[in-house]
Amino acid sequence: MVRVIDTTFRDAHQSLIATRLQTEDMLAIAEKMDRIGFYSMEVWGGATFDVSIRYLNEDPWERLRLLREHIKRTKLQMLLRGQNLVGYKHYPDDVVEKFVELAHRNGIEVFRVFDALNDVRNMEVAIRKAKEVGAEVQGAIAYTTGKVFTLEYYMKKVEELLALEVDVITIKDMAALLTPWKAYELVSEIKERYGIPVNVHTHSTTGMAVATYLKAIEAGADFIDTAISPLAFGTAQPGIQTIWHAIPETLEDLDRELIHEVSRYLKKLLDEKYSGLLPKEALMVNPYVLKYQVPGGMYSNLISQLKEMKALDRLNEVLEEIPRVREDLGWPPLVTPTSQIVGTQAVLNVLFGRYERVTEEVKNYIKGLYGRPPAEINPELKKKVLGDEEPITVRPGKLLEPALEKCRKELEKLGIEREEDVLTYCLFPQTAREFFEARRTGRKGPKMPPRVQRLKLYVNGVEFEVGLEGVDLSALKYMPSMAGIMPTSTPQTTATVPTAAPSAPTTATTPTPAAGEGVVTAPMPGKILRILVKEGEEVKTGQGLLVLEAMKMENEIPSPMDGVVKRVLVREGETVDTGRALVELG
Amino acid sequence: MVRVIDTTFRDAHQSLIATRLQTEDMLAIAEKMDRIGFYSMEVWGGATFDVSIRYLNEDPWERLRLLREHIKRTKLQMLLRGQNLVGYKHYPDDVVEKFVELAHRNGIEVFRVFDALNDVRNMEVAIRKAKEVGAEVQGAIAYTTGKVFTLEYYMKKVEELLALEVDVITIKDMAALLTPWKAYELVSEIKERYGIPVNVHTHSTTGMAVATYLKAIEAGADFIDTAISPLAFGTAQPGIQTIWHAIPETLEDLDRELIHEVSRYLKKLLDEKYSGLLPKEALMVNPYVLKYQVPGGMYSNLISQLKEMKALDRLNEVLEEIPRVREDLGWPPLVTPTSQIVGTQAVLNVLFGRYERVTEEVKNYIKGLYGRPPAEINPELKKKVLGDEEPITVRPGKLLEPALEKCRKELEKLGIEREEDVLTYCLFPQTAREFFEARRTGRKGPKMPPRVQRLKLYVNGVEFEVGLEGVDLSALKYMPSMAGIMPTSTPQTTATVPTAAPSAPTTATTPTPAAGEGVVTAPMPGKILRILVKEGEEVKTGQGLLVLEAMKMENEIPSPMDGVVKRVLVREGETVDTGRALVELG
Repeated sequence: MVRVIDTTFRDAHQSLIATRLQTEDMLAIAEKMDRIGFYSMEVWGGATFDVSIRYLNEDPWERLRLLREHIKRTKLQMLLRGQNLVGYKHYPDDVVEKFVELAHRNGIEVFRVFDALNDVRNMEVAIRKAKEVGAEVQGAIAYTTGKVFTLEYYMKKVEELLALEVDVITIKDMAALLTPWKAYELVSEIKERYGIPVNVHTHSTTGMAVATYLKAIEAGADFIDTAISPLAFGTAQPGIQTIWHAIPETLEDLDRELIHEVSRYLKKLLDEKYSGLLPKEALMVNPYVLKYQVPGGMYSNLISQLKEMKALDRLNEVLEEIPRVREDLGWPPLVTPTSQIVGTQAVLNVLFGRYERVTEEVKNYIKGLYGRPPAEINPELKKKVLGDEEPITVRPGKLLEPALEKCRKELEKLGIEREEDVLTYCLFPQTAREFFEARRTGRKGPKMPPRVQRLKLYVNGVEFEVGLEGVDLSALKYMPSMAGIMPTSTPQTTATVPTAAPSAPTTATTPTPAAGEGVVTAPMPGKILRILVKEGEEVKTGQGLLVLEAMKMENEIPSPMDGVVKRVLVREGETVDTGRALVELG
Repeated sequence: MVRVIDTTFRDAHQSLIATRLQTEDMLAIAEKMDRIGFYSMEVWGGATFDVSIRYLNEDPWERLRLLREHIKRTKLQMLLRGQNLVGYKHYPDDVVEKFVELAHRNGIEVFRVFDALNDVRNMEVAIRKAKEVGAEVQGAIAYTTGKVFTLEYYMKKVEELLALEVDVITIKDMAALLTPWKAYELVSEIKERYGIPVNVHTHSTTGMAVATYLKAIEAGADFIDTAISPLAFGTAQPGIQTIWHAIPETLEDLDRELIHEVSRYLKKLLDEKYSGLLPKEALMVNPYVLKYQVPGGMYSNLISQLKEMKALDRLNEVLEEIPRVREDLGWPPLVTPTSQIVGTQAVLNVLFGRYERVTEEVKNYIKGLYGRPPAEINPELKKKVLGDEEPITVRPGKLLEPALEKCRKELEKLGIEREEDVLTYCLFPQTAREFFEARRTGRKGPKMPPRVQRLKLYVNGVEFEVGLEGVDLSALKYMPSMAGIMPTSTPQTTATVPTAAPSAPTTATTPTPAAGEGVVTAPMPGKILRILVKEGEEVKTGQGLLVLEAMKMENEIPSPMDGVVKRVLVREGETVDTGRALVELG
């Protein structure tokens, strides 16, 4: 009998509506969900932690406790990115251990742990701790394609996870590349060789998910991940309603009437409160994902990055470049954060020449700071990036100093002592500070209301209701510049009447010299993260002047000449467009 | 080896973008499609004929000839609704035969023939003629669920079709109810018992389609129907890109690079020209289809019908009523036109009491004019509707007088002699007249441009590009009343500035007496189709006063009393709202 893990409150809304489902909307239906009969409900981890404090002004720990209060029969489960926890970089072991302990204490009974490189060393600390506190552990293997990913590769990963005494093996197919027959092969082989329970997790992005589950179940899979339609399918998991209809004999008994009630509730939420957040693209099967084997989210990120760089016409080149970058980097699976690392480097390779610009993340990756890739890194690239420096070979987490005490002391100064808050702060210091401040002052609710903006539009005297999806018009009041959001800039004669309202104010900018000899300009739009030089300082050709965060990656901007820094023309934290003068050299 | 029938130019755009793909957009890519290697391409029939003349101002015969010119290697195929051809009612045998002959002469090599009741007698004339002209015939069985639809039911249908010497059996799952295991069972059984080639046709509406094809192929299916993503999935067929990825070993060889090119072309069309026509709802897996076993199109029809009747809150009752109506009517499958007949009767039953109002179509259905239903009609209902009249038992087409000569003569008066035009006229006389007139005067192009209406909207001086999907703003110039389209009527203060333009003009209406004793009012919104009485005429209680076309069905409005017609307050062709006074009796 196959058991069902429900992802509605984690992966489904993360995949379809940008992780924006609010706690209040979960609680309203949580008790019904609890009585459906799922084996477990994935309700925490992944991007939910970050989004809660960054966009929703919600305490993720509070959400977990409240869900636990409402969900008493069904196990609660979370997705943990190994040593990255719920963030995007490695955290020290003491932080990892404390996080697992607190997650368990607040209600998590099942930890699904993975690592973007399938480097099991990065999962070790979290898994051991989870076992120690008595939780159940699903050891997840990121599924991907590429010449090194043979059946034996996956069996070796299973063995490494078995050595850590995981309870279940999860095949985590985040990019929806797992075909029905491949699922059959993997599941059969794992079951036959090791007899351990197997869980298959996939997404419906490429349209195969139901067929993949069907074959996985034929091969003996013990658990599948589904969501509740209509918050299902598309880039999320298939809907349980379809699965039970398609393969009813094999599923554990679930309360269909309750599911129907939840479904109606979700439909209303999607039609009304969250309608602006569900894009048509998330629901369409994207043929490019299959052709280029990149996850759907990565594909849409590439589109928006290239649009921002005004280079959307280079998309095909970038898609062709991705497998080359993957090969050069030793075939990392494409999942957070490697999808961003590979995608951005592919963009830079196409726009500026192959490895002419290398992000800090790629440097760190090659140094071994993300762990061991599935295959060897291209030695020429390694040489080019590291020079004679040797990459590390130990478990990366081992090199990180304990941080818990330091975080605790820093927070004490703000008068905050709660252990959960210390963890939140350790993970996302800057965002956490802002969140604590908002909490202290009683500022509540999401920063960007998920509600679609409804306007009345009058055309020739006839009134239309117009929804502006994903645009927060209230933000117009305080948003300093609208660049980067959707408005177009060429006025055009149409049926609407332009208002006489003044333009939105723009940020005051320092007068800057024209680009030219001696003026270093931004090669792409981004945010100035760190300035590495001072005015008057001597610099050498190739020396880093500042770090520009673009496409979520750090890009060091090197000096094009030997000289002296005459003026630094930007501030840390400032957002710049392509061509913006950054530093004047002389 | 499984062969692939491509539905992009027929069922896919019919299911996803309201059949609005224009010939010019097909021709631009037709030669590439031709070289992909499909067994056949379904490009004609179904709703395409009607939509071409009604909305696109395109000659469907001309489309077929042009496609044939561009598609030379791949067989062209059409969907034929048996004796209904490409319309919604039975046509006389001479019209059916001539239609098949001309379709073949203009390029159709494969006819897929079905009947909404699976009454093979309604398919007989078309199939015999298609065989006679040397075409290939797929005999299609409408798949549905319900207690009478046993394995033996389907085998009996196969045998009836085999008696007509069809070349292929098609399992036509228009409502996406066919589960993977049911597909396996049906296909295995047909192959084993009769050894005939089997084709499975399904839709992705419920999310099972890929799994269903997978099991059908395991059972030995010879043909599957797919479309090309992104004009695929949702309410249409699954995309071929996914299918070849999911089950590559079993498919015939197709040119993937060409498919990729076509895919990019379609993506651009969908993003730009047709973006307003693809609703999010068509892409979401609709859980209600699974719960209530009604096709997606029927479900959305019900929603809009109930909205129009201001009774959307009765939706659940209507959904519960549908299986009862089906049972009463002898379990018709739900497909054009039975889905409309059953759906509308279910609405009327809920709103006005069970069978208190019966549409003309239900009367005709019970009379046997649509053919023989899968099971017995409820004898009480039959008695209530027909009284002592006996239903017919012969093939309904047999009762229809030949019509071809009559059509030919009528058209001659307009100076039109082309045989294809005669057929168009026989099928849709009124629409054809308008179409011929438009053609004569050189008026071209679709009546409702499929393009999304893009407006510039200024909010606080910032410009937004706003798309109004599915609304033709140019129509505002001549549309007499905006009722029924989307504008809301309660003005509300918002960020937009109302224009000072005058209201759209409304139709002049006759002054009407208030509803009350002696005044018969419209029970629902609709169009006055025929007035059955004259002023001064004596009428009896229950006698029909006029026929109101509502929800695409004809509803006779009976006199509530014995009396005399004092005034007829409406004209034929007029559109009326609920409560509108129709006839004054005295």
